[in-house]
Amino acid sequence: MRQSQRGQVDPFIVMDVMEAARKAEAAGRSIIHMEVGQPATAAPLGARKALAGALDAPLGYTVALGLPELRQGIAGLYRRWYGVDLNPERVVVTPGSSGAFILAFSALFDAGDRVALGEPGYPSYRQILRAMSVEPVAFQTRAENRYQPRPEELPSDVQGLILASPGNPSGTVLKKDELAALTARASELGMAVISDEIYHGLSYGARCHSALEVTDDVYVINSFSKYFSMTGWRLGWMVVPEDHIRTIERIAQNMFICPPHASQIAALAALDCHDEAEANLAVYAENRRVMLEELPKAGFTKIAPPEGAFYIYADVSDLTEDSLAFAAEILEKAGVAVTPGLDFDRRRGAQALRFSYARSTEEVAEGLRRLRTFMAERG
Amino acid sequence: MRQSQRGQVDPFIVMDVMEAARKAEAAGRSIIHMEVGQPATAAPLGARKALAGALDAPLGYTVALGLPELRQGIAGLYRRWYGVDLNPERVVVTPGSSGAFILAFSALFDAGDRVALGEPGYPSYRQILRAMSVEPVAFQTRAENRYQPRPEELPSDVQGLILASPGNPSGTVLKKDELAALTARASELGMAVISDEIYHGLSYGARCHSALEVTDDVYVINSFSKYFSMTGWRLGWMVVPEDHIRTIERIAQNMFICPPHASQIAALAALDCHDEAEANLAVYAENRRVMLEELPKAGFTKIAPPEGAFYIYADVSDLTEDSLAFAAEILEKAGVAVTPGLDFDRRRGAQALRFSYARSTEEVAEGLRRLRTFMAERG
Repeated sequence: MRQSQRGQVDPFIVMDVMEAARKAEAAGRSIIHMEVGQPATAAPLGARKALAGALDAPLGYTVALGLPELRQGIAGLYRRWYGVDLNPERVVVTPGSSGAFILAFSALFDAGDRVALGEPGYPSYRQILRAMSVEPVAFQTRAENRYQPRPEELPSDVQGLILASPGNPSGTVLKKDELAALTARASELGMAVISDEIYHGLSYGARCHSALEVTDDVYVINSFSKYFSMTGWRLGWMVVPEDHIRTIERIAQNMFICPPHASQIAALAALDCHDEAEANLAVYAENRRVMLEELPKAGFTKIAPPEGAFYIYADVSDLTEDSLAFAAEILEKAGVAVTPGLDFDRRRGAQALRFSYARSTEEVAEGLRRLRTFMAERG
Repeated sequence: MRQSQRGQVDPFIVMDVMEAARKAEAAGRSIIHMEVGQPATAAPLGARKALAGALDAPLGYTVALGLPELRQGIAGLYRRWYGVDLNPERVVVTPGSSGAFILAFSALFDAGDRVALGEPGYPSYRQILRAMSVEPVAFQTRAENRYQPRPEELPSDVQGLILASPGNPSGTVLKKDELAALTARASELGMAVISDEIYHGLSYGARCHSALEVTDDVYVINSFSKYFSMTGWRLGWMVVPEDHIRTIERIAQNMFICPPHASQIAALAALDCHDEAEANLAVYAENRRVMLEELPKAGFTKIAPPEGAFYIYADVSDLTEDSLAFAAEILEKAGVAVTPGLDFDRRRGAQALRFSYARSTEEVAEGLRRLRTFMAERG
């Protein structure tokens, strides 16, 4: 049977790493997981309790944009986190941030339109765009700019721009004035801006700034996956300009009917589970401290300042020209799974690795011991 | 901010009916719901118990195509229901059948491709296609063909065909030889065929036939929403040809990461909850019997043979030329919410209504009493 051109998207390289790690574990080896982009913790207890208490009611379709009280609760988060007074009608609950991207790309771009994104960056931006007949226009951000784009680097002949702060894989954060300058320049150039803020809440110095602090003319995407430790629940949200609400509602009605009801119930309760989320954050903070202390001793010295998320991105150009082979070697010899940079940057990614520190501090410490030993033996 | 052309999809008219019904109820009126396309029952008890027992584990991402044991269990359903021996690798678990359509349209069609679909039919086919830059090519099926397409009616200049059996809104079913003739003709014409089998299990005479009984060269889409009474759980599946598995896996990894984990756990257990699903079916069967007895007495005489699903589609051309106004009048005067046909058929739908009988038998009986009184008074 026929297949489309646009459906031939690239595979996720990290998936192959995960599969190799799984096989090694199945063969009885101990593997430390520094490849995964998700917390090892369960959803907050309050979220699980709320769902357990709701299971006997029929969990039918909700309205397409999500439970009104959940949209209200998310709007409240913008007051709490950023001091932004947000009309809850602008909050769209989505099937993961993935679903939010699909909605955004449908509502903003037509086939053949072009969307700019900095590399290194989350690979699915490119692939979802391609699968929806939109052309990703990648440009290389610079290490000295913390792998974040500068206004003067934006291409001028595109219809959209994706920003990500904290970035994946870099963990670097856009300051408020940088967000303002980037969104202003994009607006001058007639681009629609999508700001991926999925790692907000996970920062280790100053808090993260939302694009909504500097403009209303933006799509902001976030999720319960990371800070609220709910990856598998597939629940995200998007904040859109007032005059886009009806468009998004119609597309969402047809493309998704509604986000998963059980996940919405759990997420509503999760919004009140501060202490647990902050306790998880404290673990990441300690993991990050240990990583920043030990990784350079192991020989990974060129790292982007990891101000948020739970990733460290290392330039390993002094160690390899083939990050794929290097990651395989680390898995094989050190028993540590790490992600080669090629998922994130098709050019320089051959000389970069991403380390995740989302698991327990014990695991992170053991992984670092193994990396030091391996690197010392490798010489 | 810019909006795309393709994002301007039509609203779901049934949503406006639901909103009008909600407002009437909020104002204190009693409304019988014959507009909704979902069971009033909860997920099977076994499904809810399985999830309750799993809530303390971290429900992280699953692999993109779904839990292997769930894919195996779904393959087992094909043996049980159709006597088809299915490679579980061909089963793709999706975020609702909605997610399956998004995957299918990405994998099969490029921007500008054309996909044929019979009207009356499920309106979201058209809208999802449009939002993904594929052109829906609607053709009118005939009442004397039970609103199902005939091979000789298929357009020749299209790249795809969507079949639906039981159909929504008609509830009519394609026989095995009809499925064989349609898929064979589509194959001759070079079309990719997508067979929507979401109402399978809900039939009232002979069992429904899957397109997989007559060909492997097809995408078959189904869901836990209807027979298993799990609409809000957003879990569906798709069976694809062997040589499409990798393509779908890569798109799913990027577009969805994975289907909701909690829903997958519930669905796996639901596969064993036969008795409960069959008990729900017995209610629909009784509802259908009462509907077929009473609707004609109320004056709705021209109905398609409702062999499956939980819908009856009535040609009301002798009663109105404006089904939207007629439905509003029925809601206002009879206190019964029904769906105007315009969602399903943009031409003849102005003279058609869809009645759903998915709720309790008491509600259905009360709705029918109200309809008879209303129609008698209307004269």
